[in-house]
Amino acid sequence: MWELRSVAFTRAVFAEFLATLIFILFGLGSALNWPSASPSILQIALAFGLAIGTLVQALGHISGAHINPAVTVACLIGSHVSFLRAVFYVAAQLLGAVAGAAILHEITPPDAREGLAINKLHNETTTGQAVTVELFLTFQLVLCVFASTDSRREDNLGSPALSIGLSVAVGHLLGVPVFTPSILFLFLQVFWVGPLVGAAAASVVYNYILFPQAKTFSERLAIFKGFEPEEDWEEREVRRRQSVELHSPQTLPRGMSEKV
Amino acid sequence: MWELRSVAFTRAVFAEFLATLIFILFGLGSALNWPSASPSILQIALAFGLAIGTLVQALGHISGAHINPAVTVACLIGSHVSFLRAVFYVAAQLLGAVAGAAILHEITPPDAREGLAINKLHNETTTGQAVTVELFLTFQLVLCVFASTDSRREDNLGSPALSIGLSVAVGHLLGVPVFTPSILFLFLQVFWVGPLVGAAAASVVYNYILFPQAKTFSERLAIFKGFEPEEDWEEREVRRRQSVELHSPQTLPRGMSEKV
Amino acid sequence: MWELRSVAFTRAVFAEFLATLIFILFGLGSALNWPSASPSILQIALAFGLAIGTLVQALGHISGAHINPAVTVACLIGSHVSFLRAVFYVAAQLLGAVAGAAILHEITPPDAREGLAINKLHNETTTGQAVTVELFLTFQLVLCVFASTDSRREDNLGSPALSIGLSVAVGHLLGVPVFTPSILFLFLQVFWVGPLVGAAAASVVYNYILFPQAKTFSERLAIFKGFEPEEDWEEREVRRRQSVELHSPQTLPRGMSEKV
Amino acid sequence: MWELRSVAFTRAVFAEFLATLIFILFGLGSALNWPSASPSILQIALAFGLAIGTLVQALGHISGAHINPAVTVACLIGSHVSFLRAVFYVAAQLLGAVAGAAILHEITPPDAREGLAINKLHNETTTGQAVTVELFLTFQLVLCVFASTDSRREDNLGSPALSIGLSVAVGHLLGVPVFTPSILFLFLQVFWVGPLVGAAAASVVYNYILFPQAKTFSERLAIFKGFEPEEDWEEREVRRRQSVELHSPQTLPRGMSEKV
Repeated sequence: MWELRSVAFTRAVFAEFLATLIFILFGLGSALNWPSASPSILQIALAFGLAIGTLVQALGHISGAHINPAVTVACLIGSHVSFLRAVFYVAAQLLGAVAGAAILHEITPPDAREGLAINKLHNETTTGQAVTVELFLTFQLVLCVFASTDSRREDNLGSPALSIGLSVAVGHLLGVPVFTPSILFLFLQVFWVGPLVGAAAASVVYNYILFPQAKTFSERLAIFKGFEPEEDWEEREVRRRQSVELHSPQTLPRGMSEKV
Repeated sequence: MWELRSVAFTRAVFAEFLATLIFILFGLGSALNWPSASPSILQIALAFGLAIGTLVQALGHISGAHINPAVTVACLIGSHVSFLRAVFYVAAQLLGAVAGAAILHEITPPDAREGLAINKLHNETTTGQAVTVELFLTFQLVLCVFASTDSRREDNLGSPALSIGLSVAVGHLLGVPVFTPSILFLFLQVFWVGPLVGAAAASVVYNYILFPQAKTFSERLAIFKGFEPEEDWEEREVRRRQSVELHSPQTLPRGMSEKV
Repeated sequence: MWELRSVAFTRAVFAEFLATLIFILFGLGSALNWPSASPSILQIALAFGLAIGTLVQALGHISGAHINPAVTVACLIGSHVSFLRAVFYVAAQLLGAVAGAAILHEITPPDAREGLAINKLHNETTTGQAVTVELFLTFQLVLCVFASTDSRREDNLGSPALSIGLSVAVGHLLGVPVFTPSILFLFLQVFWVGPLVGAAAASVVYNYILFPQAKTFSERLAIFKGFEPEEDWEEREVRRRQSVELHSPQTLPRGMSEKV
Repeated sequence: MWELRSVAFTRAVFAEFLATLIFILFGLGSALNWPSASPSILQIALAFGLAIGTLVQALGHISGAHINPAVTVACLIGSHVSFLRAVFYVAAQLLGAVAGAAILHEITPPDAREGLAINKLHNETTTGQAVTVELFLTFQLVLCVFASTDSRREDNLGSPALSIGLSVAVGHLLGVPVFTPSILFLFLQVFWVGPLVGAAAASVVYNYILFPQAKTFSERLAIFKGFEPEEDWEEREVRRRQSVELHSPQTLPRGMSEKV
């Protein structure tokens, strides 16, 4: 339970809340049916994808930017996060999604948000078909997340944020014609079963079959329980502070010209 | 006031002018209502986003490529630039925007630039709603700017220019249906309040809460006042010159084949 | 024949199967003619391209993520893979494509998958013209694959996965108006001759003319026969395990915050 | 004149021919007016941009992948290439463009290639306006080219190929509504004056004002005349061969798994 007293843990949970709020606001917001301009499927898919890409870039170093309960569960299965962290992340994501949807509701005129709250399966799609689509969407996304953030890789990865974002876009290119994005996504069974099964499968395939980690069962159990010392985080902060102090104030960036 | 005598400072202010001129020219230009082909929302959003991405790539190392007064204010709040630099950047941005709009006016036939100068809120959107949309647009952009250019990060960041550009595109995917881009953007209160509040909030959240810098108040004050020695910039230039001389003329790039 | 007993080889073949399954599912799936929204050419091209980009990112370090028999043949010609590996890759790709198409068939309502199984040349295009288009599509793709994964390059390559994906998108922007993507792609002569000739040409141009490798004929023969010792792979795994053990469990990533 | 006997020079000129052939084939090809599906401006702009991105990635290390006479002239002005190299590059680009257009003519049915050869200014645009648009298109592209390939930069550049490609896309988003892309582009005065003036201006602004190189006049003259020893290229090849030999055949890549 040490995590609950950790500043870094609190920041990470807050970052998940903030990221999911912005994701829902921009993703669902881009799918609104404005009378003047109904959005194309490509536009919706890129809005969801580029929003994720932006948020992973902006907040990935704070919390990992899961933004999605399925990703958090996949990380739990793959021994990347503790159980407590997973619980707090999922709670923050759900709160963030509700907050984002509420803000979107306030800032849009009534005619544009029609249909925002109704989840509709298109074209006589059955529930089983929708669940399968969701399963594969999340499978390829979670595979991409693990591969893009795998510190064991020595090859050229480019931008993990962009790759993960474009993976979300690909998923929506297949998914949007099957079901309209809506806030109910989050609360309907169909949008829980598919993603969770897909995420779990991808986590097992990546972390246990294709590129297995050399972790013993007791190591995995330790990660699950969150029995990790606080020191390394503290040390990181101390080191960071020192490194900044060494360079300041003479070489503090003046303008972003030295960093962009 | 030493900055005013600095060549690097003058170059940076000129780069902000040039970048904003090109941004307004290409951004607004892509949103023109040609009778033959009215642009889609995705097209406008990508034009604005890719223009920013190109300009950050092209001029980021000269001035930081803020291009936007809200970004400059966020950098001032986050202790990244001096007050004098911020004032000159904002002035250069406003001049550049006017120059870009004037050039666009000259190169387009009258029927296409109809509506260019008129800022229109769409679909019964209220002023408060538009301000809120602008606030969140700028919030996520400024968060992405700070995270993408944070030299303290040790993870794989990919291209900051592309990430920042795509963040602008995401913002426009939400914003364009709410209000048509126009030159009046720059002079109407609604387009100042939202971005400035959003930028300030993002700067505080990033620089003081999520990933705080280890700077004392006196250090921040020194940055604000621009009390930074000229030497490091001069030294950088001297070093650069030497490093180039060491390699010339024998290994000067012959064609870009060695560098692309 | 040692390769058949190698775990890494089995993983690579499985990864090719999985990648092609997902590619066909998402690529063809995005080209479905939903009654509500017929996809645009740009949408189809980006779906194919971003799917490849995602899969190269996710599985490139496992198998190379060829996904396409023409790419595998090009790698064989360029002495990058053994004959046995090429045979197993192509078999896995064909199986994966069939599996992907079968899943797509199951998850789509009948009215949307109309035309899925029929390969149609558009607009009075002749077979010769279609073959030539396919030839150039594959030529530029294979050139991009070799250049993006060339470990001899010392310049800044960005993300190979994204570059390869966007190369696929460019190809589809030219190709989709000429022929509708369909599962028959894989079994019609026109979709074998063009790609294979284009891939072979690109492999020869890149590996033997523009950027020749310093390999003797006997070295190439050894690669072709797969006479490569198992040791280096084993060693890599041993090293990896050790490196992980050295850091565990104290510094095992807790959340992806340290890696994203 | 030693360059004419250099294998690397010959490869580079061939690469420019090949790159321009493919660029014209895919760029113009994507702008064809198929009766079934007239391309959108965004589609055309992305086709041109992603084609450039792919070709810079694939051939940038061979020739620099200028692909455009204006870029070559800008490199000559910026002392990046010799006069002889510039002349051969421009000739190869013109030949490649004609060859690409000829291939496109052969592979498209007559109804689709209508208008391919006719350059049309849209919407009462005057010649002066079109020239100005071309000038700014090329200005921002050339600025992006120099900045993206500047070996003196120490900040994170991401993928130069992608940045340059997206800069081309931005340019086309503004340009395509003004004039339809066509092969006549290459031979009409309006499409020479604007790009060349824009390219020259960008080269002067970048290389002499914003980020000046420390080159003396005699050094620049030496580059212009091509008085560069052949040795460094030869040495690079020798070093490359040795480095490959050191690792072969034991660690030659088997599959692209180690490199992608």
